[in-house]
Amino acid sequence: MTAGPERRLARCSVTRGWGIVEVTGPAVHRIKRGDRVVLPAHIFCGVCFNCARGDSAACLRVYPGHAGGAYAMPGMGPFRGSQAALVRVPFADANCVVLPGSLGDDFEDDFVLIADAWVAGWHATELAGVRPADTVAVFGAGAAGLLAAYSAQLRGAGEVYSVDLIDERIDKAAELGFVPVDARKGDPVEQIRELRRARPGSRLPGQEEMEGVMAGIDAVGFQARDRRRPDQEDPRQVINDLARLVNPTGRLGIAGVFTATDAAPAPEGGQADGSLHVPWATLFNKGVTVGFGRTHDRRYTTHLRDLIISGRARPSQIITHHESLEDAPSIYDRFDRRVDGIVKAMFTHP
Amino acid sequence: MTAGPERRLARCSVTRGWGIVEVTGPAVHRIKRGDRVVLPAHIFCGVCFNCARGDSAACLRVYPGHAGGAYAMPGMGPFRGSQAALVRVPFADANCVVLPGSLGDDFEDDFVLIADAWVAGWHATELAGVRPADTVAVFGAGAAGLLAAYSAQLRGAGEVYSVDLIDERIDKAAELGFVPVDARKGDPVEQIRELRRARPGSRLPGQEEMEGVMAGIDAVGFQARDRRRPDQEDPRQVINDLARLVNPTGRLGIAGVFTATDAAPAPEGGQADGSLHVPWATLFNKGVTVGFGRTHDRRYTTHLRDLIISGRARPSQIITHHESLEDAPSIYDRFDRRVDGIVKAMFTHP
Amino acid sequence: MTAGPERRLARCSVTRGWGIVEVTGPAVHRIKRGDRVVLPAHIFCGVCFNCARGDSAACLRVYPGHAGGAYAMPGMGPFRGSQAALVRVPFADANCVVLPGSLGDDFEDDFVLIADAWVAGWHATELAGVRPADTVAVFGAGAAGLLAAYSAQLRGAGEVYSVDLIDERIDKAAELGFVPVDARKGDPVEQIRELRRARPGSRLPGQEEMEGVMAGIDAVGFQARDRRRPDQEDPRQVINDLARLVNPTGRLGIAGVFTATDAAPAPEGGQADGSLHVPWATLFNKGVTVGFGRTHDRRYTTHLRDLIISGRARPSQIITHHESLEDAPSIYDRFDRRVDGIVKAMFTHP
Amino acid sequence: MTAGPERRLARCSVTRGWGIVEVTGPAVHRIKRGDRVVLPAHIFCGVCFNCARGDSAACLRVYPGHAGGAYAMPGMGPFRGSQAALVRVPFADANCVVLPGSLGDDFEDDFVLIADAWVAGWHATELAGVRPADTVAVFGAGAAGLLAAYSAQLRGAGEVYSVDLIDERIDKAAELGFVPVDARKGDPVEQIRELRRARPGSRLPGQEEMEGVMAGIDAVGFQARDRRRPDQEDPRQVINDLARLVNPTGRLGIAGVFTATDAAPAPEGGQADGSLHVPWATLFNKGVTVGFGRTHDRRYTTHLRDLIISGRARPSQIITHHESLEDAPSIYDRFDRRVDGIVKAMFTHP
Repeated sequence: MTAGPERRLARCSVTRGWGIVEVTGPAVHRIKRGDRVVLPAHIFCGVCFNCARGDSAACLRVYPGHAGGAYAMPGMGPFRGSQAALVRVPFADANCVVLPGSLGDDFEDDFVLIADAWVAGWHATELAGVRPADTVAVFGAGAAGLLAAYSAQLRGAGEVYSVDLIDERIDKAAELGFVPVDARKGDPVEQIRELRRARPGSRLPGQEEMEGVMAGIDAVGFQARDRRRPDQEDPRQVINDLARLVNPTGRLGIAGVFTATDAAPAPEGGQADGSLHVPWATLFNKGVTVGFGRTHDRRYTTHLRDLIISGRARPSQIITHHESLEDAPSIYDRFDRRVDGIVKAMFTHP
Repeated sequence: MTAGPERRLARCSVTRGWGIVEVTGPAVHRIKRGDRVVLPAHIFCGVCFNCARGDSAACLRVYPGHAGGAYAMPGMGPFRGSQAALVRVPFADANCVVLPGSLGDDFEDDFVLIADAWVAGWHATELAGVRPADTVAVFGAGAAGLLAAYSAQLRGAGEVYSVDLIDERIDKAAELGFVPVDARKGDPVEQIRELRRARPGSRLPGQEEMEGVMAGIDAVGFQARDRRRPDQEDPRQVINDLARLVNPTGRLGIAGVFTATDAAPAPEGGQADGSLHVPWATLFNKGVTVGFGRTHDRRYTTHLRDLIISGRARPSQIITHHESLEDAPSIYDRFDRRVDGIVKAMFTHP
Repeated sequence: MTAGPERRLARCSVTRGWGIVEVTGPAVHRIKRGDRVVLPAHIFCGVCFNCARGDSAACLRVYPGHAGGAYAMPGMGPFRGSQAALVRVPFADANCVVLPGSLGDDFEDDFVLIADAWVAGWHATELAGVRPADTVAVFGAGAAGLLAAYSAQLRGAGEVYSVDLIDERIDKAAELGFVPVDARKGDPVEQIRELRRARPGSRLPGQEEMEGVMAGIDAVGFQARDRRRPDQEDPRQVINDLARLVNPTGRLGIAGVFTATDAAPAPEGGQADGSLHVPWATLFNKGVTVGFGRTHDRRYTTHLRDLIISGRARPSQIITHHESLEDAPSIYDRFDRRVDGIVKAMFTHP
Repeated sequence: MTAGPERRLARCSVTRGWGIVEVTGPAVHRIKRGDRVVLPAHIFCGVCFNCARGDSAACLRVYPGHAGGAYAMPGMGPFRGSQAALVRVPFADANCVVLPGSLGDDFEDDFVLIADAWVAGWHATELAGVRPADTVAVFGAGAAGLLAAYSAQLRGAGEVYSVDLIDERIDKAAELGFVPVDARKGDPVEQIRELRRARPGSRLPGQEEMEGVMAGIDAVGFQARDRRRPDQEDPRQVINDLARLVNPTGRLGIAGVFTATDAAPAPEGGQADGSLHVPWATLFNKGVTVGFGRTHDRRYTTHLRDLIISGRARPSQIITHHESLEDAPSIYDRFDRRVDGIVKAMFTHP
């Protein structure tokens, strides 16, 4: 594995996040010293069998013996850092996304979100095959879930429902123009069906079977909290809800992380090996397509950057906190305990 | 060929347009007496070899011996009407797009545009393969061109340039949020390149060859006016401009009508047989894809309807005039003479 | 629901199958009296919201209140027949696939397989996104599984592995040029990996993680037999094998039927509600796409017919028995008991 | 621009061709000294804006200031060589396609064709959107045209017509299983239509308008010879034929080279600037899609290699001559004069 020059980190984001950096090391081919760049979390070589097909999250070279590598993710290689002052970048020519110098600092918060949360949210809409006019439900209104809903909107989705259990996230979803659904108030599937039936014009004759959603996204993952007992986890909950809610011929994207080895004991309905009880016959009978997995950053980063430059997208609207990098441990602690209403925090390093 | 029941026409649009109707004839299978529907201009059977593949504009049955039929278009069959009080509908079950009764009249102007101009504009973005973040140029800001630009925006395009020669259309383009380009003021290709270079952040290092547009649309057709001599036609002009403007790897959509038999004498550079002098080597060297042809209505009509119902789209913003059906001849005359600033007129029949 | 004319059944196939018919009723629009046609099992209207998008297996009109209807399948409507002398055809214009009269009887066995097994097998390759050069594994070498493997070959797949537990099916797979895998002889996943490693040239440097298959198909369904205890069922077995075998970035097609309500008691690992224990974390970490469901016949029937007419395809190679329709009960009984080596039987009605 | 190590050329092909090489320089990251590789003609960096989207033939870095670079092609950069004993490889990690060492020399002729003719032919089928069961016509039966037809077959095309004016090519087309069409014997469009009408079963009721082909490929380019006066060129001829032959809703691929600056005087109907008289109205009225341009090698090379390894493809069947590299000038001369029946020659360097 080759490593690029060291870079000075200017800004980064929580939870898993990344930063805008300035190249301070020796010149390399495509990236020049002094370029302003953003570095996505999933690192790749750009030329292996998988990268050549666009599947950069399954790069065969960055973490030899594995398909894919990333900064600071369990099981994805020895890549330290991200929320740090300096970081080493393997295959820097492939991984650094060049930013326009002329824009100054005006869009830095937007650009930083290309590093992780927005590219994850955008990929979720690809996994779920979101098309114009689709009705979309996103389970989970954390940073990736909110930006999945935001990406669906940008791509022309009709109505976008955003489901969560935490006040600040639900408020943020409403603020961004999604239909917020508070899963503490009852079955979110029934809530969404009820909302749809209540809309003027939404109950078209001959389409009653299509009153669910055409596209559904799991932006929660294996640590989903049981909505009836929020102090407990239930990893089956989101897929059970999505399978009930999705229309026949619909599509689901599983973007929330599922791991085969969880440190904690397996909750009811899950297993220590990462398998789940899943409504397989429902998915079959509805003829659903399900896309899984981590974001192939290289497919999206330049497009997302250009949406910011053209003024079409301002993903930084999801950010609730700006802090200095020194405060990261404290922010993480409060984020985990769900206090202080942290939806997404941005760190600055002087 | 089978014909459905007669229908009462409630509202229709100019130039070629169609109307919202109410079924007054005997009940047929899918459409019931009293349903409120909209009828697109390209008629199809729904079950032939081409319809089954989604290519409804090339239906093999509606106009036997031809691929495709439409109301009131030269060479597309004996289907009279459209701007009329009553109309006969072949294959009514396939062609009528059902509208929600519960919305009342609030969106009728929007729904009527599904009949012709919006579905043509949307298809133009399909022909040009418009993707999120794409920079798009639409030549022609008539009803279909404006709605092509509008569709590109809905699908997530970055910047959208709208080119025309007529004041009212250019004003409407600006009003809808596109970047207006007045082709009377100079080469529109150079104008767009200059606008792009002037934008902060748009000139990214290493992408200088990509400063044109990724997607270009011809919404003018064979009657294009020579921008240097607007009293003359030059059917080569738009493709020459698009070939120069499009980026390597870009895509073009030819949605403006080209006919093999024009009543008028062939202008310079065109031929009476519908052939044109085209920059073939430029298209080859840039590796461009070019999509041609009429809109396959059945692919889009329900999606466009649902974008209106969900509140995401209000295509009726392009309408400049509301008149009664009796005034149609006068409106057409003024539209052809380009007086009174008619961009799109809507007719109502009491 | 409207019903077409009665038709005389000339030939049909087992297990679930269908027949070539001759129209004997009154003339309808597209289909004329005396046409020779084949009738696929999944019936559809051709013009509803789902049919218009090509999703004919989820037709909203043929079985009102449900998405999709089919002949002689549990839960898919009141459509009797198929192996019968006469049958009623709803929406006959949409459902009858016209055959060329000039070919006589030479290809009747091939054409009959468009009705059910081949269209199911072809759809399986669509669900699994089979592309040229892909390595493909098909679990189950019954009629649909063999024709899925055959379809993968026609589409340019590289190596095709065919897995089963029954001698005649394994022999047929070898006869058709697939690599046969006898799951009674050990873990089929390990067998396939071992076969691939043993091939000269197949172990490319830097691609060791891609030694599985790019596309996998479940052509077995919920009644999968436990390969270690073939007298018992284990509905989890195939998805567990496929999840282990598929490469990162690969695709799976679930074409075998899964039902929510099985008359028999739920086996270990399954549930009476049709849910299964599935290796969810493996699918996530490999970034797999999974397509589910019944075949959308209208997308494929004319293409499959044309592959037969052009001489490219002879799916009838899978047929092992020709019998008269009167013998159907006996054939079914022997088929269920896995005696007499019935892979696929064809019935003729005088 | 960075340059890789020098490589020893073992074998190469005519006309524009490339070779299998052995790395003899210092180790680089992905490619190791001693690897056996093949080097396609279009060189690319692998990580720029266009390469990241898979459009490697429009690489923005390999030939700065241009979109795309290639060995020994006019206007595509300073890259000398290809038919040579040693060659320099820019961005060697991206461009070298690794071959399995264990296969020895058995497939070297096949692998060499990945370098140029086969990848060009395969891309032509992508440009023309060839799908299973399609009827395909390829104009030009030189190496790229024959391998376009061969690729169409591999992808499941129904009937494949191969049109040329030279005996040896027409014979080779027949030998490979295509339907040969000798354009000297009359209008090839009428010949193909006649052949199709004469086939039993090909004239299906209700599809008379679809008796042409669904996909057509121009594998000739701007130096097309006028079939009525073979000593003259007519660059319009192929597109005129294809526009007449293609079915409504069909697709065309323009893979033959068109240049804006030809040293020779412009023939009738062409222009010195690379523009052509093209049947634009026919393309519009048929709703055709036209793809243009050079092959994006990186999308296809590993797939084509794997089709050879798996035994599915033997493109070397098109080779008619094996010579030593020293004889290249003589072979080129005879090839240009169309003597000795050279369809494709392979050079070996000791």
